[in-house]
Formats: sequence, structure tokens, C-alpha cells
Amino acid sequence: MGALIEDKIRDICEKVLHRVTPSEGERKKTIEFSTHLIETLRCELLREGIDAEVQLEGSVAKDTWLADEKDIDIFVLLPERHGREGFMKVLEAAKRISDGKFLEAYAEHPYLEAYINGFTVNIVPCFKVKEASEAKSSVDRTPFHTLYVKSRLNEKIKSEIRLLKAFMHGIGVYGAEIKVGGFSGYLCELITLYYGSFLNVLRAASKWRKGEIIDVEGHYEKMEEAKKIFRNDPLIVIDPVDKWRNVASAVKINRLSEFIMASRLFLKEPDMKFFYPEETKIYSTRDLLRIMKSRGTDLIFVKTGVIKAVPDVLWGQLFKSQRALINLIEQFDFEVLRSEVWSDEKNVNIFLFELNSRFLPSIKRHVGPPIEKISNCERFLEKHLNSESTLSGPKIEGDRLVVYRRRRYTDVVSLLREKLRDGGRSLGVASLVSQAFTNSLDILVNEEIKELYSTNHEFASFLTEYLRGRPRWLS
Amino acid sequence: MGALIEDKIRDICEKVLHRVTPSEGERKKTIEFSTHLIETLRCELLREGIDAEVQLEGSVAKDTWLADEKDIDIFVLLPERHGREGFMKVLEAAKRISDGKFLEAYAEHPYLEAYINGFTVNIVPCFKVKEASEAKSSVDRTPFHTLYVKSRLNEKIKSEIRLLKAFMHGIGVYGAEIKVGGFSGYLCELITLYYGSFLNVLRAASKWRKGEIIDVEGHYEKMEEAKKIFRNDPLIVIDPVDKWRNVASAVKINRLSEFIMASRLFLKEPDMKFFYPEETKIYSTRDLLRIMKSRGTDLIFVKTGVIKAVPDVLWGQLFKSQRALINLIEQFDFEVLRSEVWSDEKNVNIFLFELNSRFLPSIKRHVGPPIEKISNCERFLEKHLNSESTLSGPKIEGDRLVVYRRRRYTDVVSLLREKLRDGGRSLGVASLVSQAFTNSLDILVNEEIKELYSTNHEFASFLTEYLRGRPRWLS
Repeated sequence: MGALIEDKIRDICEKVLHRVTPSEGERKKTIEFSTHLIETLRCELLREGIDAEVQLEGSVAKDTWLADEKDIDIFVLLPERHGREGFMKVLEAAKRISDGKFLEAYAEHPYLEAYINGFTVNIVPCFKVKEASEAKSSVDRTPFHTLYVKSRLNEKIKSEIRLLKAFMHGIGVYGAEIKVGGFSGYLCELITLYYGSFLNVLRAASKWRKGEIIDVEGHYEKMEEAKKIFRNDPLIVIDPVDKWRNVASAVKINRLSEFIMASRLFLKEPDMKFFYPEETKIYSTRDLLRIMKSRGTDLIFVKTGVIKAVPDVLWGQLFKSQRALINLIEQFDFEVLRSEVWSDEKNVNIFLFELNSRFLPSIKRHVGPPIEKISNCERFLEKHLNSESTLSGPKIEGDRLVVYRRRRYTDVVSLLREKLRDGGRSLGVASLVSQAFTNSLDILVNEEIKELYSTNHEFASFLTEYLRGRPRWLS
Repeated sequence: MGALIEDKIRDICEKVLHRVTPSEGERKKTIEFSTHLIETLRCELLREGIDAEVQLEGSVAKDTWLADEKDIDIFVLLPERHGREGFMKVLEAAKRISDGKFLEAYAEHPYLEAYINGFTVNIVPCFKVKEASEAKSSVDRTPFHTLYVKSRLNEKIKSEIRLLKAFMHGIGVYGAEIKVGGFSGYLCELITLYYGSFLNVLRAASKWRKGEIIDVEGHYEKMEEAKKIFRNDPLIVIDPVDKWRNVASAVKINRLSEFIMASRLFLKEPDMKFFYPEETKIYSTRDLLRIMKSRGTDLIFVKTGVIKAVPDVLWGQLFKSQRALINLIEQFDFEVLRSEVWSDEKNVNIFLFELNSRFLPSIKRHVGPPIEKISNCERFLEKHLNSESTLSGPKIEGDRLVVYRRRRYTDVVSLLREKLRDGGRSLGVASLVSQAFTNSLDILVNEEIKELYSTNHEFASFLTEYLRGRPRWLS
């Protein structure tokens, strides 16, 4: 690495660090508020006869949070004898101290997301276990993660962790939530501890290969063993507190690849844009229409209304439904060039499908049985020889019978309208999305999106970026 | 088989036999004319100092020809010492006795096709060899075929052979010429001898499987051995005079499948239409346009003019060029639903491609290298990041870089026009076709074929059958 580049990187890191390290004021306010909440909740629980350990977890507990990150994680550790009922009592108590501003979530485990004093507070009941490997669910493991990391931190490494988190945040790969499918805070901490510094992480990541294994505590003697256990994961980071867990299991291949590519480019041409990307310059509506038209494809927007759920549940449902819709569309021979989901997480959810064409010819080639299969051939001829829907054939092509039939759907819009009329549950559309479809379903094609585009800035930004199709750090 | 069906088959066979057995008059005329020709040619050759055996081959020699089949095969057997020069002298002599009405052919071997007295006379020079296995080319083997079949014939089996030939002719699988790719006369004779009768051939064929082996003379002890040698041929009939030859090697899988399917259907519902199909009822031009439109596809007709060559050469070139054109079209992402070639073998040759759409969107997904390949990724970004033809991206999809580029050809007509301007030789278009393209090339789309359709009955019949897409014996 050239000296000039090194200087530039040092300069950038210094500036970033200045912005992402919480001020003494923020620190004090956050800790005081957290301590207050914990005390309030403990009392509330005692009143219910529950003597639980209520403790701070997450980045606030470890002092590795980024300035202005307003997430507080409070865990309630219950002895196992309380069972799931204990969880419910915790949630009820949490609701009482949340002053009505909360969402109940049942993603992998039940928890409460409360909005108090400008903070997002996650109140999570879990079981108190002796060892992480005895955990019933991932949340039972969290206290061990906190302990593990805290015992290895110093001020220097906290800064390196903050740099990595800020970098990942800037390039859009930070966060294990379903919407992102990126790197969790704990994962950032682990790999920084493992490689020693922010820059070393980037240098290593530049050369990561598919199925890369990072065994922080050396749990495995042979890497092949770990590779076998986690063989489908693109990145494998063995949990120091539980050798059977991959801390990076939520990292989607796209996010991993983006991190690798961004690491390489940053080391080659360091730039603040990796940490702080420029805001998207939204296309004017006129430009939007011109650009959409010039692609020659058809953009299909499947739009629905309110879905009440915490983001992880919402996005889980949206992605699942997106896969179901793509399957439906492709099953009827339309070609999906690209697809994305957008949601404001409140009132509007949009599935976007870009197709080579919304229309298909009326005629469709239907390949029948091989000539060798005598009775199959008989049935095929019986079915198609005098069928209304046979447009041409049957004939013989190679060693098979073939018939050219009338296609059921020649317009993808009719297909979607008809199949989603009842919500599309049986096609694999997720329950809440399916319900939303039955309440409101709009299918807009190409320029019909104009109105939403010109009235919803967030959506306009999404669609502009979609059309540009380039990560903001790549230019 | 029910007695009723048996009666019906007997009745049909009788009627067919009546029509396909040459009358005494035809027999006499054909034999006398052949004998005369042979004598004339022998004298002509003697005058040149060539003392060759000139003899009758083919179905006339074996008395297995169909009434009104006007093909006479005369072979000139030369001692090997005459070499290829000898062949040339034979052709020259043949020309002199042909009165100017002939075509010279150099398909697999040189020969002359002359048109005399209403007969098509093939005059074929070949080498006289001691055994069929010493043959330099397939024509050297013919005299052995004639001897083999003649020594096994009787009047009964000749009729069975004629029935099979007539059946195959009726369903369009008779003839080893390139245009058809079906069953040669010799092949019909062999399988009739093998199975004993016309009906037995049909019964056996009904159950043929891919790679069926018929070893007439039992040359192989183990069928696996033969299967290995001829493993890509869909039908294997070991030549009685040369165990290393498959007599059925020219049979295309389509023709074989059609024969199998027609055999089954005839045995189930015997009908004269298998021997004598009804003439195609041509669609009116109005119906044609309506039917083409209702398919929703685009029919592209690539039309060119005169190609002077005997049919085997012409069709070989047409099929080869068709494959090259399909490759070209598909290489640029257009989807070919079906394709056929038509030729009047004189003035007009047409390649027909039915496409899902003649148009494609301007944008095309172009998948780049995996993220792991560091230097490939660098080159990819360098090439596409600021390229004029990049419409969207580069971005990361899964573990790869992807870019959305401007498509070079969005209209198949422009593609064909541009690529065939110079004849398309470099794309694999065969030489004579390529030459024809440079002289005249018309690309017609859908209704633009109207004029040719309404003025050329033979073509109209072809296009009607194409659109109906059903063998005439299938209804």
C-alpha cells in the first residue's frame, strides 16, 4: 500500500471516529436512562413475584455503539421453571412501563419493541442457562456474548469496532435484521477482535472466499469439520461461546459479496463515501419515465397497504411472498429480469418485478411423453387431439410428442390479478401479506407508478437507485 | 387384434397392392429401357477403352419398385486401377448418352442424374471390390446389397416390401435422401425380410425403443457390442454384407418416431389415409392471416433465390444453414419456438423461424465474474463502470458482479439483415446458400408473406401444414 493511500486512510478514519464515538453527554444520558429502565422493570417484575436478573446487553452494554444509535437491549433472564408463561409476564410488565408506545414481536422468540424518550428499547425475556450451549433459543446465548466481548475489550479496540460498524453501515451491510441480512454488532466485534483492527479486517475480507471460516477460539482442530457442519453458509464465524453456532449465519451472500468488494475498493481508493454515501439524487418524473421506457422492459408494481408487524416479521413475510410471486410469474413463463421489495414499514408495501415483457404469445409449446411410452402417448393424443386449447399439433419432435396449446395467461397483469384475488395464500404468499392483498391490491405497470413516485420521496429514492442499479459506494 | 380390424387391414392391403404393383406394361417398358441404356453406356465406355461392368441396381433390379416410381439406378463397376479419373470418364460418357438433360452431383461421391424418356436415371461409377467390407464408399457396397436381397426374394415377399414402402411413402418417412432422412428402399427390404411381412414389421415397430438393434444375419454375438459401435443412432440395422455398417444410419429420429407412431395407430385404426393422405386443404389468405395473428408469435421468413444443386446437396446446405441461423438468432437471445425449411428445389428457398417475439428489450443482463476472482472483477469494473453501453449497474447479485447493458439488436430483422449482408459464411451458412443470400435476400415478417402464399400453391400447402402442425395421418 502506498504511503499516500495510508495517509489518506488514517485521515478518513480519524474523521469518522470523531463522528461515531458517542460524546460524554450521549454516553451519560444513555447509561442513566438504561439503568433507570432496568430498575423500573425489575421492580415491576418483583411486584409480580418474579425475581429475575434484568440486565443490559448489546452495544450499549459493551460501549461499542455508534453515536446517535438509539438502540437499547434489555434482557430479562428467567430461571427455566418459569417457562413460556414467565415470558408472557415479562412482556406484560414491559408493556406497563412502555407507556403505550410499543410493538409486540414474535419473530424467533417473543419480545417487546418499545419507543421511549427517543430510544428504541428491546425488552427480551430469556432463560438463564449455565452455558451457552444449553441455550433453548438464540436470545439465551446473548448474555454469554456480552460477557465474552466485554472481557476482551480496550479503548483502542472499541474504536476499531466502531470504524468497522460505521463502514458496514455506510455500505449498507450492517445489521442482522431480516431486511438487511447483514453483519450483526456481535459479528463486527468478533471479527475485529480476531483480525486486530478495522484495516486488518478489510485486508482479510478482500481475500475471503466462499465458505470462509473464522474460528475465533480455535474450537475446531480441522477446518473441514466446521465446513461440513455449516456447509451452506457463505461465511462461517464460529461462536466463541458455542462451537455449534455460526455467528454469521444470517449474512446473505449479497451482503457478504458487497462487503468484500467494498473492502477491496476502499483499500485501493479510500473515500469518505464508503462511510457516508451521498444522498441519492432522485430522477425527475420526466427522467424517470424516459429511463423506464428506454429499458424496453415492463416494470410491474404490485402494491398493497398496511401490514402491522415489527420489521423482522414484516420483511420476513415480504421476502417470502416475493419468492412466491416470482415462482408464480415464472411458472407461467414470464421472464423476471430483476425483482425488489420496498416498504415504508407503515402504509405501503411494493413488490417490483421487471419483466422482459408483460405479454407472451398465445401459443405455448407443450412437450409430451417420449414415443417409447406407449400408454402415455395414447393418453396424450386422447387429451390433445381434439382439444379446444390445441392450436397446432400434436406432432412429433425428436423422440417426443409435442403440442402447441393456447396459453392461459398472455398478460402478467391478468395472471397476478386473478391469482391474488383471494390473497394467494395457497401460492405461498405469507399470511399477513395475503391478508393485505385481500384488503387492497394495486397492480401498476410502468408509467402508472408516476403518482406514487412524485409524492413519496422515500419510494422515489428507492426506484431511482433501482434503475441506477449501482451501490452508492461504486462510482 | 379384433377380427373386424384384421378384415379391414386385409382389405386395405389388397387395394394398396393393386395400386403399387407395376403393371406388365410398366415392367416391360422399364426393363427394356434399362437394358437399352446399359448397352448404350457399355458401348460408349468401350469406345473409351474402358471395359467396365455396367449393371442395373436398386428397386428395378430387384423388382421391388412401386408403380410409377421412375427411378433407374445404373452402376458402372470399375477396377480400382482406374482411380478417380475412371469415374470422370464414366461421367463424361454418361453425359453423352443423356442428351443434355442431367445434373452432375458430388454429394458423397460423384454421379450423374439424367432425365430421359420420363425416367430419372442415376448413373453411378463405383469400384469393383471383392467384398462389401472392402468398399471405399457406400456406392461400392450397393452391388452386394442387390445380390443379397435378390437371392432371398419371392413374389409374396416382394408384395410385402411394396406394402411397407407404400406405407412409409404415405406417412412421409420413405427415402434416405437428405430432405427426408427416412428409410431407404434397401432398409425397407431388409426389415421386411427380417420380420417376414408388412404387418409384422408394423407390429414390431410399434414396440421399438430408442437404439433398437436388428441384426439380420446375426453378425454380433452380443448386442451390447453393436450398441457400442452405433451408440448414437436411434435405429440400428446391421448390414448383412458388412457388419460395420448401420443401414439405418440416415434415419432421423423424427422420421423413426413418426413411423413408430403411425404403425401403432394404423394397427389400431387401419385406414387408407396412411398410404394415401388427403391433399392439404390450403387456408384462404384471410384465414392464414387470422391464424398467424392468433398465435401471438412472430413468423420470420428468410427468403432467397436460385441455388443450383441436386436435391441432396441443396437440402444438405439448407439444413446446415438453418442450424447456423438458429444459432445466430438464439445467440442474440431471441427465442425460436419452431423452425422449418422450404424449397421448391428451383427458384425459391425459405427459412422459417417462429419466434416468441421479434423484439427484445433494450436492456440485457450480463453476468460477470465471481467476487472471489479479484483481477477478473477489476477488469469487469474497469470495462463496465463508465461504459456507454451500461444502462444499469454494475451491481452485486449473489456472489457475482452483474451489469445491465444495452442490447446490440432489439429486432431480429435488423440482426438477420446485418449479419447476412455478406452472406453469413463466417456464421456457418453453407457456401451455396451464402452465395444465394448475397444475390437476393428478403426478410418477411408475418403478413408480409401474403403475396408468396397466394401465388405459390406448393408453398401455401407447406405453410398451411406448418400452422396445422399435425401429420396428415393423425386426426
